[in-house]
Amino acid sequence: MGDLLWPGDERAGDLMSDSAMLNAMVRVESSWLRALVDLKVAGPDAASDLSGLVTEDDLTGITDRSEAGGNPVIPLLELLRTRLAANSPAAARWLHRGLTSQDVMDTALVLCAGVALDRLHAEIDDQVSSLMTLADRHRGAVMAGRTLTQHAVPISFGLKAAMWLQGLLDAADLPPGRAGLPGQFAGAAGTMAAATELAALSGHDDPPGLALDLAAHASRTLGLRPHPPWHTSRHTFTGLGDLFVACTDAWGRIANDVLTLSRPEIAELAEPAADGRGSSSAMPQKVNPVLSVLVRRAALTAPLMSAQLHLAAAEARDERPDGAWHTEWSTLATLTRRTVVAAAQMSEIVSGLTVDTERMRAAALTASTDLLLERRTLSALFDDPAAGQLDIHNDVHSADPAGYLGANDLIIDAVLERAGSYLRGSS
Amino acid sequence: MGDLLWPGDERAGDLMSDSAMLNAMVRVESSWLRALVDLKVAGPDAASDLSGLVTEDDLTGITDRSEAGGNPVIPLLELLRTRLAANSPAAARWLHRGLTSQDVMDTALVLCAGVALDRLHAEIDDQVSSLMTLADRHRGAVMAGRTLTQHAVPISFGLKAAMWLQGLLDAADLPPGRAGLPGQFAGAAGTMAAATELAALSGHDDPPGLALDLAAHASRTLGLRPHPPWHTSRHTFTGLGDLFVACTDAWGRIANDVLTLSRPEIAELAEPAADGRGSSSAMPQKVNPVLSVLVRRAALTAPLMSAQLHLAAAEARDERPDGAWHTEWSTLATLTRRTVVAAAQMSEIVSGLTVDTERMRAAALTASTDLLLERRTLSALFDDPAAGQLDIHNDVHSADPAGYLGANDLIIDAVLERAGSYLRGSS
Amino acid sequence: MGDLLWPGDERAGDLMSDSAMLNAMVRVESSWLRALVDLKVAGPDAASDLSGLVTEDDLTGITDRSEAGGNPVIPLLELLRTRLAANSPAAARWLHRGLTSQDVMDTALVLCAGVALDRLHAEIDDQVSSLMTLADRHRGAVMAGRTLTQHAVPISFGLKAAMWLQGLLDAADLPPGRAGLPGQFAGAAGTMAAATELAALSGHDDPPGLALDLAAHASRTLGLRPHPPWHTSRHTFTGLGDLFVACTDAWGRIANDVLTLSRPEIAELAEPAADGRGSSSAMPQKVNPVLSVLVRRAALTAPLMSAQLHLAAAEARDERPDGAWHTEWSTLATLTRRTVVAAAQMSEIVSGLTVDTERMRAAALTASTDLLLERRTLSALFDDPAAGQLDIHNDVHSADPAGYLGANDLIIDAVLERAGSYLRGSS
Amino acid sequence: MGDLLWPGDERAGDLMSDSAMLNAMVRVESSWLRALVDLKVAGPDAASDLSGLVTEDDLTGITDRSEAGGNPVIPLLELLRTRLAANSPAAARWLHRGLTSQDVMDTALVLCAGVALDRLHAEIDDQVSSLMTLADRHRGAVMAGRTLTQHAVPISFGLKAAMWLQGLLDAADLPPGRAGLPGQFAGAAGTMAAATELAALSGHDDPPGLALDLAAHASRTLGLRPHPPWHTSRHTFTGLGDLFVACTDAWGRIANDVLTLSRPEIAELAEPAADGRGSSSAMPQKVNPVLSVLVRRAALTAPLMSAQLHLAAAEARDERPDGAWHTEWSTLATLTRRTVVAAAQMSEIVSGLTVDTERMRAAALTASTDLLLERRTLSALFDDPAAGQLDIHNDVHSADPAGYLGANDLIIDAVLERAGSYLRGSS
Repeated sequence: MGDLLWPGDERAGDLMSDSAMLNAMVRVESSWLRALVDLKVAGPDAASDLSGLVTEDDLTGITDRSEAGGNPVIPLLELLRTRLAANSPAAARWLHRGLTSQDVMDTALVLCAGVALDRLHAEIDDQVSSLMTLADRHRGAVMAGRTLTQHAVPISFGLKAAMWLQGLLDAADLPPGRAGLPGQFAGAAGTMAAATELAALSGHDDPPGLALDLAAHASRTLGLRPHPPWHTSRHTFTGLGDLFVACTDAWGRIANDVLTLSRPEIAELAEPAADGRGSSSAMPQKVNPVLSVLVRRAALTAPLMSAQLHLAAAEARDERPDGAWHTEWSTLATLTRRTVVAAAQMSEIVSGLTVDTERMRAAALTASTDLLLERRTLSALFDDPAAGQLDIHNDVHSADPAGYLGANDLIIDAVLERAGSYLRGSS
Repeated sequence: MGDLLWPGDERAGDLMSDSAMLNAMVRVESSWLRALVDLKVAGPDAASDLSGLVTEDDLTGITDRSEAGGNPVIPLLELLRTRLAANSPAAARWLHRGLTSQDVMDTALVLCAGVALDRLHAEIDDQVSSLMTLADRHRGAVMAGRTLTQHAVPISFGLKAAMWLQGLLDAADLPPGRAGLPGQFAGAAGTMAAATELAALSGHDDPPGLALDLAAHASRTLGLRPHPPWHTSRHTFTGLGDLFVACTDAWGRIANDVLTLSRPEIAELAEPAADGRGSSSAMPQKVNPVLSVLVRRAALTAPLMSAQLHLAAAEARDERPDGAWHTEWSTLATLTRRTVVAAAQMSEIVSGLTVDTERMRAAALTASTDLLLERRTLSALFDDPAAGQLDIHNDVHSADPAGYLGANDLIIDAVLERAGSYLRGSS
Repeated sequence: MGDLLWPGDERAGDLMSDSAMLNAMVRVESSWLRALVDLKVAGPDAASDLSGLVTEDDLTGITDRSEAGGNPVIPLLELLRTRLAANSPAAARWLHRGLTSQDVMDTALVLCAGVALDRLHAEIDDQVSSLMTLADRHRGAVMAGRTLTQHAVPISFGLKAAMWLQGLLDAADLPPGRAGLPGQFAGAAGTMAAATELAALSGHDDPPGLALDLAAHASRTLGLRPHPPWHTSRHTFTGLGDLFVACTDAWGRIANDVLTLSRPEIAELAEPAADGRGSSSAMPQKVNPVLSVLVRRAALTAPLMSAQLHLAAAEARDERPDGAWHTEWSTLATLTRRTVVAAAQMSEIVSGLTVDTERMRAAALTASTDLLLERRTLSALFDDPAAGQLDIHNDVHSADPAGYLGANDLIIDAVLERAGSYLRGSS
Repeated sequence: MGDLLWPGDERAGDLMSDSAMLNAMVRVESSWLRALVDLKVAGPDAASDLSGLVTEDDLTGITDRSEAGGNPVIPLLELLRTRLAANSPAAARWLHRGLTSQDVMDTALVLCAGVALDRLHAEIDDQVSSLMTLADRHRGAVMAGRTLTQHAVPISFGLKAAMWLQGLLDAADLPPGRAGLPGQFAGAAGTMAAATELAALSGHDDPPGLALDLAAHASRTLGLRPHPPWHTSRHTFTGLGDLFVACTDAWGRIANDVLTLSRPEIAELAEPAADGRGSSSAMPQKVNPVLSVLVRRAALTAPLMSAQLHLAAAEARDERPDGAWHTEWSTLATLTRRTVVAAAQMSEIVSGLTVDTERMRAAALTASTDLLLERRTLSALFDDPAAGQLDIHNDVHSADPAGYLGANDLIIDAVLERAGSYLRGSS
């Protein structure tokens, strides 16, 4: 199931796989056929359960015949019609009537993305909880703050975890969140002309109204939100891309810190241990921070995939784009899988992170002269040069970097409060 | 003011220019100094109006000395302190105390982006109005729908305009919208340690609380939203990038249609005429659709700039990133200017677009056999093969493509209703 | 074998597939083991033919256990060692000794890319021949030149084909061309320390020299070029990316012209017909230019994948990058497959393109007033205003756009000559 | 001159600035006018030296009027014609005759890029020399090799420098190198029709041949290579982009190592010191590795700009692209400047790098157990389990990591030899 060249990919399971997409495409056709029957456009003899008609064994055949039409819908329909013909000729005749290939591709992608969205939000909830614990537990764990690779002023590890958490919350709050994704049932050029025509031919009073009802009915069957045609307004996919990349941004930032702080010369953090994890093919001593390496990998690649979705949106043209649309499918599928894989890896990192607060404190103490230099420049502001108060201030200041943590607790509290609200809202 | 290599750039005026950024940086320092005085951390003698202390003439000097510290804040501070020293030594001493360079850079960029956001939303409002008019006025203007460059089924130009409008509304609804952007007053490593220390040294009861009050006060002075430190959670900038690129996506899609439909062989749309616009250096007959060309240019470049902002976010590290942060400034500034330029160009296109409904109708009639073939396949569904009803249906169907517009009106109405809500909400 | 979401993908066959990579990885281990034996570092009992030891059935197992070490080499080695243990314990002990995971991954990717490179150059040769024929045959086929979507001056279709050809030659001439790709046998940190140690322990005189000999021997076994370690200088992969994207650039430019010129309102070009190609799921009349649509898709996505490879190169760090390296594998594999797929599609387009020279000429004649306006401005330069020569020139000029083709033939000849040299050099 | 938001930008001086481009555009027009006169198409009265006719004061006027035509050539020509009219009416009449805007833009960009290329190669030569010295001098300076952030096996710093050097040589060897860049004198649609017509009207025997001669003459005047029209084959610019990004890749890899190894916990490298460099606005102790930070910034942004140039190439269409062409100018200019700035910064880093070989050795010794574990596994291969030789090997092996450097010297020598050849070839 997984991709040999993207270790960890199997964590995504069947998500957005070819067979998942095939299954979703059949569900889209099913939902439309059911709408036609339920709303009495087609007769009851057209009702048919399409599930199981096509199996994974059909994948290669469909794939191999998808180039001719530029998408896999046409060979899928041929197969479905052939298999329906014997037992359900009416279903075979009514299948896909009123739809176009893009309806099927778009809605199937949305269905698969919806599954990913649920998994993603579950992982985020876990991560928010883990990070809340880290931020609260380690609010007093002083460590060296580092900027541009050099020692700056002291921070607590709790504050660092709170900043990680804040980045995650920024991403988690983005649309589409848990709100519904839209179905696409728009017809050949976004007018629902065929659906309207079918409604008219079947004797309905308000054919255009019934066309919209058909689309709404099919959308709801699939758990999707009824929506006007969006053939050429591709925000559904770019919005997903923006959300996914906001997540990988937040995780990449965490992974970078774990990678830096687990260097042997620093060794303040360590990834959760697991059997065989982080081992090398040549060097027995190695325990590489492999989860963070793999998360960073995702964070370095997601932005360009999201940009690719935006390029597709920007290059929409006519009533269906001549190539830009075709770039979305694989890009969205890959980005989605990788985001879910990275989500699971990040959940594992933050739930089991080893925090060596003793080493943090020791390093901060060793570096305390540097870490507290800013503080001394501030005392000088209040010196009365005539009275030589500088020494007094120097006495007052202990050399403990833990004494120069500023609003550490209030900042952590503010982020924890936001995180709590988020979890309450999302539960 | 404009950029010779980005024609139209002067439409953005001073926005995000070096002098605008310099001015914004001074305003940030001013707002913080004022907070220190107003909240009685510094004495009243530290109050000082910094505006006018630094002028455009100082730009080159500051720019040329910015490499040493990696940002322009240090040379700016040297200049400000020197100039304050004579008349306001207390202000010179208190200037920037409690802040770090990143506070000044981040908040100044936010201030400049806020100006852009206001302009952007004003342009969007104009465009929404123009597109509402086009969608409503031309709802009956039949034209050939085109998919994958070929004739598909009929649409109306009103529907096309409604789809353009829908894309724009998708973008316009994105955060941060008109909500406030956050200020950044976080101190050297995001703990507000220096501000807290200053509050303690000046005898305040709750130094961490006062540090947050200082940040909130300075933010409000600048019209910004108080926010916990976000040194390493860079959603403020990626969110702006996502919004900007969603706009250029929507405009790119419109520009592509205008470019296609103003080809001389089609000639159904034409850009608004203006003196000299679209002319050529060699060919006197030329009237190039130059605004659409320039908007398309923006749409092709914005996605990669937004991706660059995401890469910066993903590559955050420690308490201040070692290079990723530095990529944000110029990227955000360029993306912002180009978005505003494209906004103005697009407003001009949609407000003055020439729509040749006669040519549209004539072309649709010429192509009516093709455009109505789908319809004929639908009638066949209802045929009673025994009774030869096919002919009857053929009689019923006129050859007028305007008779096969499906739910055209209802779809347009739905988008117009959403647009109306948007305008009411945004006024 | 193909990817459902990238129609046409099956054209790439097994190229860079998981099983091809697995096979290549085994070949790399084999070549090294053979070098150890041939150069008498290991004893003759370590000789073993690894081919067939691992099959496609092992893929899932290896993939699923690749996350722990961050790459699939470790589980592959476990499997190989287990299977060798019974019949060839010495081979099991010597397997991979002296290598590191990166050696195996890098060299296996190079092997797979080499196969692609051969296919790519064969397709390019075909395309060069087809385009030479088009350029030469249609050098007199006048058509409207178009700039910024509008009519400009006349061109010939032969010239257009020559310009397409020139773009392809620019790409084809890039390195690595048909020169050898490098093997990577560098050891854990690029020093070949383990290989050197093995040479010493086995009693060789010049252990470092023998280490280099081992690498050279293994490289040559695989048909690769011996090369110093390139663990952290990643030009091998960025160079391939640059070449691939230069090809898709050239093809994208051709596809765009085919898409534009096969619009029904222009209809000067048509893709080669094939059974079922270009059909629609809803509209029976449709013959979409689907090959060009699919090639354009590749051209829109390749640049970002090549940029991803460059980002990986730029983010190299230490003696093996912490995440950047891991982004290369899947990116290179995907880019390679898509390039080869687009190559095959483009070969089909240019070898079977329908060129309607009558329509071209007719359209140029219809537009001749516009197309010849530049010419009239030039005659005016030579007018003697006193003598009223303007009329004379107007008489001299026929209204035939074919009379204003400039250096059409010479330019075509120059490109044909370069193409001929290319083909002679590459045969 | 510099860009406030890209610290260090002033290092690029006037390169690719608006005024440099304006000057280059005038040089292009001059070279063509001279060709017309020299080859007796225009009379000798059309000879005119255009230099100085337009100054920096004209920039704003030209920029502000460039949107109408979509490029700055038309307003520049208006200005030039007006200023020529009084003293040189023939020159005013002949100016630009035979050219089109794209000729002027393309060739002017090439001229500016050529200046950058010269600077770039000079910087590369310096860097190659510096890195050769570092590689040779420190070939015995043992240090910990690090992979995936963790200790691996020993390396020498000389080897690391050799690997840096190898990456640079890979880039330096790329085309266009020091070979000539092409001029573009192609006319309105790439046929040189106007030039041919002018040759005919002026009575020349072989008008097409003379058109090519004119282009060759003008190209040579500018020091450029005569080349067939490349209006729509944009490899000239993508090739430059590929070269530039290959350089920033090589430098980014170096900068990442300097950033990592100058962390206070490692402190094996330090950037060359300079007055005020690396200082902070808040923390007096700070000496940030600011040059490496700024080089890394360039390395993170160059790949997306190069991808943008490829997208422009891929989106060429007709005889001049409708927006894609317009994205090239600013992208190429920015990428060029940033590459040259980073080049200068990198030259400074490698020429003055502080290498603390004592700390390197000490750290390697401290970590020697880990660094030598691979070695112990190799000895075991040769053990005779019956004879308990493991202890013997352990005795033989000193704990000095310097004893496990493999083919360190040979690898360094190979890279030095290549570097020497490069410098000899390029001098």
